[in-house]
Amino acid sequence: MLKSTIRLTTVVAGHTTTPSAAAATATAISSAAARSFHTSPQSSKQNNKIYSTADVPAVSGVPHLLTDNDLSPKQLSDIIQSACLFKHQAKVLGQPSGAPLAGKTMALMFSKRSTRTRVATETAIAYLGGHAMFLGSQDIQLGVNESLLDTSKVVSSMVDGIMARVGAHSEIETLAKYSTVPIINALSDLYHPTQILADLMTLHELYTPSGSDPHTTAPTSTLKNLRLAWVGDGNNILHSLMLQLPKVGMHITMATPKGYEPNAEILKQAQKNAQVHGTDLEVYHDPKDALRNADIIVTDTWISMGQEEEKKQRIASFAGYQLTTDLIEQSGANADWKFLHCLPRKQEEVTDDVFYSPRSHVFQEAENRKWTILACINQLLVKKGF
Amino acid sequence: MLKSTIRLTTVVAGHTTTPSAAAATATAISSAAARSFHTSPQSSKQNNKIYSTADVPAVSGVPHLLTDNDLSPKQLSDIIQSACLFKHQAKVLGQPSGAPLAGKTMALMFSKRSTRTRVATETAIAYLGGHAMFLGSQDIQLGVNESLLDTSKVVSSMVDGIMARVGAHSEIETLAKYSTVPIINALSDLYHPTQILADLMTLHELYTPSGSDPHTTAPTSTLKNLRLAWVGDGNNILHSLMLQLPKVGMHITMATPKGYEPNAEILKQAQKNAQVHGTDLEVYHDPKDALRNADIIVTDTWISMGQEEEKKQRIASFAGYQLTTDLIEQSGANADWKFLHCLPRKQEEVTDDVFYSPRSHVFQEAENRKWTILACINQLLVKKGF
Amino acid sequence: MLKSTIRLTTVVAGHTTTPSAAAATATAISSAAARSFHTSPQSSKQNNKIYSTADVPAVSGVPHLLTDNDLSPKQLSDIIQSACLFKHQAKVLGQPSGAPLAGKTMALMFSKRSTRTRVATETAIAYLGGHAMFLGSQDIQLGVNESLLDTSKVVSSMVDGIMARVGAHSEIETLAKYSTVPIINALSDLYHPTQILADLMTLHELYTPSGSDPHTTAPTSTLKNLRLAWVGDGNNILHSLMLQLPKVGMHITMATPKGYEPNAEILKQAQKNAQVHGTDLEVYHDPKDALRNADIIVTDTWISMGQEEEKKQRIASFAGYQLTTDLIEQSGANADWKFLHCLPRKQEEVTDDVFYSPRSHVFQEAENRKWTILACINQLLVKKGF
Repeated sequence: MLKSTIRLTTVVAGHTTTPSAAAATATAISSAAARSFHTSPQSSKQNNKIYSTADVPAVSGVPHLLTDNDLSPKQLSDIIQSACLFKHQAKVLGQPSGAPLAGKTMALMFSKRSTRTRVATETAIAYLGGHAMFLGSQDIQLGVNESLLDTSKVVSSMVDGIMARVGAHSEIETLAKYSTVPIINALSDLYHPTQILADLMTLHELYTPSGSDPHTTAPTSTLKNLRLAWVGDGNNILHSLMLQLPKVGMHITMATPKGYEPNAEILKQAQKNAQVHGTDLEVYHDPKDALRNADIIVTDTWISMGQEEEKKQRIASFAGYQLTTDLIEQSGANADWKFLHCLPRKQEEVTDDVFYSPRSHVFQEAENRKWTILACINQLLVKKGF
Repeated sequence: MLKSTIRLTTVVAGHTTTPSAAAATATAISSAAARSFHTSPQSSKQNNKIYSTADVPAVSGVPHLLTDNDLSPKQLSDIIQSACLFKHQAKVLGQPSGAPLAGKTMALMFSKRSTRTRVATETAIAYLGGHAMFLGSQDIQLGVNESLLDTSKVVSSMVDGIMARVGAHSEIETLAKYSTVPIINALSDLYHPTQILADLMTLHELYTPSGSDPHTTAPTSTLKNLRLAWVGDGNNILHSLMLQLPKVGMHITMATPKGYEPNAEILKQAQKNAQVHGTDLEVYHDPKDALRNADIIVTDTWISMGQEEEKKQRIASFAGYQLTTDLIEQSGANADWKFLHCLPRKQEEVTDDVFYSPRSHVFQEAENRKWTILACINQLLVKKGF
Repeated sequence: MLKSTIRLTTVVAGHTTTPSAAAATATAISSAAARSFHTSPQSSKQNNKIYSTADVPAVSGVPHLLTDNDLSPKQLSDIIQSACLFKHQAKVLGQPSGAPLAGKTMALMFSKRSTRTRVATETAIAYLGGHAMFLGSQDIQLGVNESLLDTSKVVSSMVDGIMARVGAHSEIETLAKYSTVPIINALSDLYHPTQILADLMTLHELYTPSGSDPHTTAPTSTLKNLRLAWVGDGNNILHSLMLQLPKVGMHITMATPKGYEPNAEILKQAQKNAQVHGTDLEVYHDPKDALRNADIIVTDTWISMGQEEEKKQRIASFAGYQLTTDLIEQSGANADWKFLHCLPRKQEEVTDDVFYSPRSHVFQEAENRKWTILACINQLLVKKGF
């Protein structure tokens, strides 16, 4: 993440519509389509106006998942429970889905490789009976051969939903602005909303009392007052965590090296969320401070794709940030501390004795990418809104 | 398009079979397969013949869509109406297809990237319940590691249909010669038949009288006597337009720079078609001449994939060819002129004030790639012939 | 195949379980999942153990197809007959499969391009109603960004089966060690088990008496005492042939240039198999010796992917190994000799007069990749074991 280029873009209006509003809009769109798709929109008498990109109207009323802000506390809780129910149905009971996406296609437009997200999304779509169409950077180069506006209008006119992994977050906002179908943010430089859903689902499973089922237990009851410590880069994962944790009553502490702090505007929004929900949000530069009293410890790679050139500099900057059992326990983490990591993992940020220990739930977390993305797709493409 | 290498290849016999003939052939093939797939074809006594590629028999009786010549006026009209009906059923009524391609696979063998064609084809196949297997140049290199003959025999023995984007048109003819399943030309250096179907469907929608439905209106009644002007390169899109427009009673005028004229043999065939159907076909070098009295104005990029090196030369050659509202209106286009473009679009060939104006129907045209390709796949793979 | 790096790894225990044992295991796994997927496995009191990769338990009880050794003679015979039955049902009768893989995904993790294997697998999965998710080297680089252990745990937690084409055979063994779903070896440097299934199916079809159906005839009755001659490189195809042929009562003779002999340990295992089943296994350096009395003649390219640099050296080493009608007939092959080749084919190893003659069954063999892989997938993913 290049800090200098970060720009907190405004969220596109209309993608936090309530289900009923969305349904009404969907009907309106459908009727409009029925009436007008074969008739010429212009009057036969033209004026002399100079038309440009600015004249292309934004599409409103289509529900998207672009940032963590798009989910209310209730919607966040519901989606986690829905994901648990899908896991129970599909994995434990082995039940089919009824194929609500039969005949439908979801495009996966990925400007960078992303194994977990791709596998999670394709298997989720397959479970729902739909077709996953993967378009990697060899297949489609967003913004290169044609404008994002053109791509969004063209692709969305033929598919039923889009999962997009972009570079700059503004790219996905442009896609959403002109898309006639729901768009899910599979990763942008600022946010990674579906990852945090998997994290919260995993914690909800881990803290659901023995004898209860996660899919019949409220996530707020299991997650409230847990303290999550982030030790690492101030990146998109941290941004999304900061924004979401307060909504389920969780505290967050974070340690990032100087110069690697999270985006200031997103931090401000997260502090506001914490204030509203009465949760702690603590910012440090020393890992020990962040780890004190932590229930859950999370990190991520220090060197993301595209940052390979800065590798040496980054390794130096993150000295002392490698998570080890010793560091964690000497810092005063809670006795029952657990570890999460979004993968892929490198040795630099966490040692084997943490990563492969029974305290690590990284593989359960990875699998839950599937169930949470499934719940999101079901919500947006089948139920037509959160 | 390298003019020097253009060669008008003969159309493979057998792919314009009538539905009943095709059905009879299919039955014959099926019975033959039932009898012979496990028996050795050779007699136990061998002769001393030297066998070579020439001894591999062509496969006849399989219906393909390789060039615009493969469709009679009636078949062309039917396929447009079928596409409109699919659009109505799927998009307006939201009806499922009945999954006639369930369990079946169509291979997309694309030697070059082609977003619109790929998305259109994959979503069309998904709607029909089939599996779209995309094979890009990283996956299969036509003619490189094995002969086209071998590839065609192998791939066609395992799939139910092939959508092929090739370089030289002769490549798709070789594929078709040995394929046991239908092949659709997704683009060759000489023809782009599915693009023109989408153009004609779009015009049919635009000119269907208010109150009528395109899927119950004859395309010939809406399109007859419309005048389409092509301003740009004498490429495969122009070739396909020239061949098809006369069949629905449309006139065509074209302006190409000197040295960028359409292929002479295809032009001759188009002139013959125009003569048969009593339509105009006018060839110019000045855009103004082509634009006079035009109802529909069409262009395409001047620099196709693989022509990037010639870019400077081409920009110079096409000076004065950029479509602007001023050029179009000063040239005496009809008051109600409309604009089409197959995308992706570059600024060079058309300005924003045309491209993003209400006169431009490029996004409807792009979406209609899906419905027309769907109609073709349904015709060839489900109904077994045009 | 770099001989110096070959290492015969031990076969992972547990993947030759009988169907009933596998079914019992599947139930056990399923119940365990029902009980434990949301509970933390560790006790709340941690010890000071240093955890490492070695602490990650292997997954046992999952049936795989990694090497030819994984199939008993009875299972080998059954899978060939099952493949013939699928071909009859799907191709001759045109019957649907009942979509037993509906909602399920099989990952194709291919570290190298492999057209035939890919097309065969994708079309087989589609016939069974499942989703084929192709992950090429652009999509996933096995062992590069994360350990094979991590990849196996993550991918297998989301999909229902994996088809893997790897470099070193040890890679697929590592994948299998940690995978919770069946893995099929799509090609490794040591084995190519699915190719040999297609070869045997093809021969079974060719030698099934006229008037009988291959799907109701025992492969052992048609294949017994046939003599297959391999003339070429001592590669993975030869390894798999050597191991399998004795199980159906076939003899094998082979000629490889000096320095290109098959792997010594696999040869020893093959000799043991031949001894057990009372079949011949003869090793030569002169093609003529191998071709004498041969019923079936098989070769493969001398220069596999990744060996392009050694091309000159290899061409020299294989002087005299090109299969021609003259060489074959002068060597005393049986009057009714037939030819197979796994494709893609180069001119070096076999001339057109053999390859395109009626004695060559290479295209039937290629098509049978689909039906045999289909039978394997059905066995492992639907029936849950051989």
